[in-house]
Amino acid sequence: MRNINEDTITGAVLDRLADTPDPRLKEIMSALVRHLHDFAREVKLTEHEWMQGIEFLTATGQKCDDKRQEFILLSDTLGLSMLTVALNHSKSAQATEATVFGPFHVPGAPVLSLGSDIANGAKGEPLFVNATVRGTDGKPVAGAVVDVWEADAEGFYDLQRPGLDHAEGRAVFQTDGEGRLYFKAIMPVAYPIPTDGPVGTMLEATRRHPWRPAHVHFIIQAPGYETLITHVFKDGDAYLDSDAVFGVRSSLIGDFRSQPAGVAPDGSMQAGPFHALDFDFVLEPVMQAKP
Amino acid sequence: MRNINEDTITGAVLDRLADTPDPRLKEIMSALVRHLHDFAREVKLTEHEWMQGIEFLTATGQKCDDKRQEFILLSDTLGLSMLTVALNHSKSAQATEATVFGPFHVPGAPVLSLGSDIANGAKGEPLFVNATVRGTDGKPVAGAVVDVWEADAEGFYDLQRPGLDHAEGRAVFQTDGEGRLYFKAIMPVAYPIPTDGPVGTMLEATRRHPWRPAHVHFIIQAPGYETLITHVFKDGDAYLDSDAVFGVRSSLIGDFRSQPAGVAPDGSMQAGPFHALDFDFVLEPVMQAKP
Ligand SMILES: [Cu+2]
Ligand SMILES: [Fe+3]
Ligand SMILES: [Fe+3]
Repeated sequence: MRNINEDTITGAVLDRLADTPDPRLKEIMSALVRHLHDFAREVKLTEHEWMQGIEFLTATGQKCDDKRQEFILLSDTLGLSMLTVALNHSKSAQATEATVFGPFHVPGAPVLSLGSDIANGAKGEPLFVNATVRGTDGKPVAGAVVDVWEADAEGFYDLQRPGLDHAEGRAVFQTDGEGRLYFKAIMPVAYPIPTDGPVGTMLEATRRHPWRPAHVHFIIQAPGYETLITHVFKDGDAYLDSDAVFGVRSSLIGDFRSQPAGVAPDGSMQAGPFHALDFDFVLEPVMQAKP
Repeated sequence: MRNINEDTITGAVLDRLADTPDPRLKEIMSALVRHLHDFAREVKLTEHEWMQGIEFLTATGQKCDDKRQEFILLSDTLGLSMLTVALNHSKSAQATEATVFGPFHVPGAPVLSLGSDIANGAKGEPLFVNATVRGTDGKPVAGAVVDVWEADAEGFYDLQRPGLDHAEGRAVFQTDGEGRLYFKAIMPVAYPIPTDGPVGTMLEATRRHPWRPAHVHFIIQAPGYETLITHVFKDGDAYLDSDAVFGVRSSLIGDFRSQPAGVAPDGSMQAGPFHALDFDFVLEPVMQAKP
């Protein structure tokens, strides 16, 4: 190990991982070192570029705080998040597809009863969501816990609003005995991911736009079923084919019906236009352990 | 781009880089995305592991401040730093080899005259360095600017000493008309890289020790020559074959001669044991632009 050169270094690092007790950690670290080194060799990384990389990663970590996760944003924009989702959810064709988690979920959102309004002050045109949660066998899933979150009409999540001390546009529901999930929300709009950090610099340097097509986020959890982390995207959105984080799947595009003022799906009178979304979520049963 | 899966995602991300105006940035980003995705696919990264990676990188960035560079430490321990050095310095066999820069250099060290003591309070047995700087043609390099830095007898650099307000164990010299570089220093000892951050966690999890063999750092700059960033390692050190950052090259191992109390190379009387190092640095002339 005294004659390190560009060809011997990779083997030297891999040798050093030989005593890693956790075999999975050893596998991951070894593969990481091989691909990282292959990358540097392939592009013949210069020392200046290496330092730029160090500075970019440092700034990315330092942009993170309790409300901002710039490394998730980086992973999202490099397609790593969606790749990880795809690797872990090659479900039966019947189940609802998963997509990226994103950096805007907040645990512990208000628990609301079905029919409630999640806006809580967030501005936007009313949206009435009427959904069901079923298993791939068609059976309704009663009591499923559903986390919902969305941006407001200006494209901001509540945690992007400085000084806001309460949840807006997010809630937790439970499906009823027939697996129904219905609530009032606001019509989602396309929004740019935050560009005031290193990820924004990267998007600008590569001439990529930061926009995501309008969507509502869902996490659906029920005993006996795989947890589903997904979105429902707005049909017709201009960014469906160029989502900045590669999250769109055709099966997740919902039919958001725009309606003139009048009687809403919940029976209320709406003085202005409103929207309605029907969507059926289908959960994958938990895989039985192989005998 | 609406039917992303684990096979189509990489092409979708590469397509998005199509308009990058800087061809080198496009090349680097494209290669990065391919190797990153190949890594995730090869190990079939789980979502939990992905999140552990996000948290590790975030913590690494947040461990950095004006005196600590944890991402350089990560790059060093993964062999990426030494690989980058090797890729950029495949010099003629005559020139002194380069090695890792490391995270402990401080710009603007005190400028001292030849023969001065760089310790400035740092504890350690005296070391008398007697070096020359020449070109590969054998000609002495006069007026070369030489940055020197080293850890103290406890294995700490000055910037690792909380509250220390002056430089210890670092200085800048200039070679004389015959390319000579001589100064008093302290005997370097093997030291562990800092393990109180994410890199320490990684080393522990992979059962790797954090030790570096004893060394003195040098940066040598002179007009008409390639800048040399290197170390001189102590011969016989127990860690020469397992440097935590893969920096050792046989040609960089110096002969540190230990001497009993008596007359030192600078003519002074030493009341206790001291050490002497002779080393000849050879610089590569700057490559002429090809016609
Ligand atoms: Cu690779
Ligand atoms: Fe979102
Ligand atoms: Fe060092």
